[in-house]
Amino acid sequence: MTPPPSGTDSGSAADGQTHLPHACPQPEPLDLADIRRKVEDILQSFLDERLRDLPHHQARPLVEHLRTLIAAGGKRTRPVLCAIGWHAAGRSGTPPQLLHLAAAIEMFHAAAMIHDDIIDRSAIRRGLPSAHHALRAQCTAAPGSDTSTWFGASAALVLGDLALSWSDQLLYRGQLDNAQLQDTHPLLDTLRSEALIGCYIELLATGRQTDDLDTPMEINRLKTAKYTIERPLHLGAVLAGAGPAVLSTCSAYGIPLGQAFQLRDDLLGAFGDPTATGKPTLDDFREGKPTLLLAIALSRAAPDQRECLHQLVGDPLLDDAGAASVREILTVTGARQKVEDLIESHRLQAVAALDERTLPGAAATALRQMAETVTRRYA
Amino acid sequence: MTPPPSGTDSGSAADGQTHLPHACPQPEPLDLADIRRKVEDILQSFLDERLRDLPHHQARPLVEHLRTLIAAGGKRTRPVLCAIGWHAAGRSGTPPQLLHLAAAIEMFHAAAMIHDDIIDRSAIRRGLPSAHHALRAQCTAAPGSDTSTWFGASAALVLGDLALSWSDQLLYRGQLDNAQLQDTHPLLDTLRSEALIGCYIELLATGRQTDDLDTPMEINRLKTAKYTIERPLHLGAVLAGAGPAVLSTCSAYGIPLGQAFQLRDDLLGAFGDPTATGKPTLDDFREGKPTLLLAIALSRAAPDQRECLHQLVGDPLLDDAGAASVREILTVTGARQKVEDLIESHRLQAVAALDERTLPGAAATALRQMAETVTRRYA
Repeated sequence: MTPPPSGTDSGSAADGQTHLPHACPQPEPLDLADIRRKVEDILQSFLDERLRDLPHHQARPLVEHLRTLIAAGGKRTRPVLCAIGWHAAGRSGTPPQLLHLAAAIEMFHAAAMIHDDIIDRSAIRRGLPSAHHALRAQCTAAPGSDTSTWFGASAALVLGDLALSWSDQLLYRGQLDNAQLQDTHPLLDTLRSEALIGCYIELLATGRQTDDLDTPMEINRLKTAKYTIERPLHLGAVLAGAGPAVLSTCSAYGIPLGQAFQLRDDLLGAFGDPTATGKPTLDDFREGKPTLLLAIALSRAAPDQRECLHQLVGDPLLDDAGAASVREILTVTGARQKVEDLIESHRLQAVAALDERTLPGAAATALRQMAETVTRRYA
Repeated sequence: MTPPPSGTDSGSAADGQTHLPHACPQPEPLDLADIRRKVEDILQSFLDERLRDLPHHQARPLVEHLRTLIAAGGKRTRPVLCAIGWHAAGRSGTPPQLLHLAAAIEMFHAAAMIHDDIIDRSAIRRGLPSAHHALRAQCTAAPGSDTSTWFGASAALVLGDLALSWSDQLLYRGQLDNAQLQDTHPLLDTLRSEALIGCYIELLATGRQTDDLDTPMEINRLKTAKYTIERPLHLGAVLAGAGPAVLSTCSAYGIPLGQAFQLRDDLLGAFGDPTATGKPTLDDFREGKPTLLLAIALSRAAPDQRECLHQLVGDPLLDDAGAASVREILTVTGARQKVEDLIESHRLQAVAALDERTLPGAAATALRQMAETVTRRYA
């Protein structure tokens, strides 16, 4: 594990019980908004530099779309958790190594969103046209033509690859020392591999509409729980030189919270307000997304309801009336309420993991706050 | 720049004139076959390990396809050039740092092939079904259905992302020291960015069929000359701590040779033997690939020939008879011969760059040999 870097911006790494911030009765809370801002600054400067040094001027709209997507917001859940992981391991401050690692995770997330939207045929992301839709404008073929659609998807594929490549370059910019890099890079690779393989497992299940409850939970574990919560926490903690005890607390908190996060996402995908989520509520239904919500409904549905779900979910031309019927069945079968209950029980399980082992106070407070934020959100 | 790593496996880095292998009258030639084998061993062990440690057993066929694609051969042009770059900078041997860097480049190339085949809708690669075709077999939907096609393309997209991610992980396995990593990683990033942006510039031009000769040359410069020849040489040289003189020789050799490489590729795409190239000769025509060959033909074509090219090239349903007509026009307009002449003049320009500045003898010999291999090949 890595010794603390020098400088006043980082505290001492420890799994021990003494001299940690949590020993103070009122630790100074982590400034999560400040962390978000700093990570965003790094991402924007990096992309500004890429735009200045483009190997070909015609690629400008491509990279500009990436800059717009990243500037359009998002919750920055992963970078924030990465920073909390650092503090959970007893460090303080926001040194450049940490911020660049957090920015690398967010850049990978941009790549994942761009490629996911191609796969899911989603037209909207963060309230804006998704990359494969927006980039059609660069094609001279008639809008709506097959060539224009092909061009948009191909250009978005290339843009996602650029973002994926650049996530590594951002890690380098952090000037991690060799030991930090050796600890951190394999874990960043694991985060990416798990997310991608989770995406593939979801592909296998998409459109099958079964009442099998295990598959959605397994997809959620890889694609969300590990990718969104556990691994970002681990990355910040490992950068800080955390020992196994801190890492296992992060897992005990991260996996159930990540499950709850995805279950909330599924509810928002079905019942959310598109003006808040920035995403239409038809997409998940049209795609036939294999959610636990749908599997529970299918397992409880009467034969006519089940028939109706099979007909409507996965229909790429599903309209608002059809979506309303699906929602009705998700509600009357009790699936919606059951998922709400599961979100709450998973949230409690995550928070209980914090009670069982003492993390530095500011990190523990931030994690409790995150448990609220990610499970009780509207967007 | 980086000091030489310790151990008997690496010689001394120098831009100077004394004590370099080229001072010997008969330097021992580089064993390029041995380099290929060693890089292949690293790639296969890496993928075997990935298969052992899969986050989910259902992802096995995905990673197995990547292993098959890589095992199916290819010329390993980039890894070999990376190794020659190392020797061009005065080093000897094949230390693990060099082999892992070379393997990282080849793994990125696997990602690029998989994603290119989605974009180009190519059914065959290295004589095998391309990833997006092969992976359709994992989908339960009816073969030939829209769902099966969508699944194959989506799965191949995810697999290319995994390979792209893993190209970085391979670099790490080389245990480069911090100085080597700081020199090498930005350049690996540049190689990837240039290749991807070249791919996008090609997308913009695809199907437009103009007699503009500059655009194909610009695409070739980014997508092939830099990506396939110049940057791999630079990477090996920079790992070895090369100074600007060696790097500029690599560019003076690499850019014209890379142009010649792509021009040969275009001729093989139009006139090659599919059993040797592992790629049908209809693909480039059907796709409307914006080659210099086509642009020259268009610039020289009589009105009826021009009309014929506009009709046939870019037609996704082009048949063998149509392809024969295109080939006839490419030949009678003299475009084919003109491209042959350009290949030869570019090859000579590349070789002349070696004469102007003395590189270590074994590296110079290997580069002369490569100039033959890449321009006079049949596959």
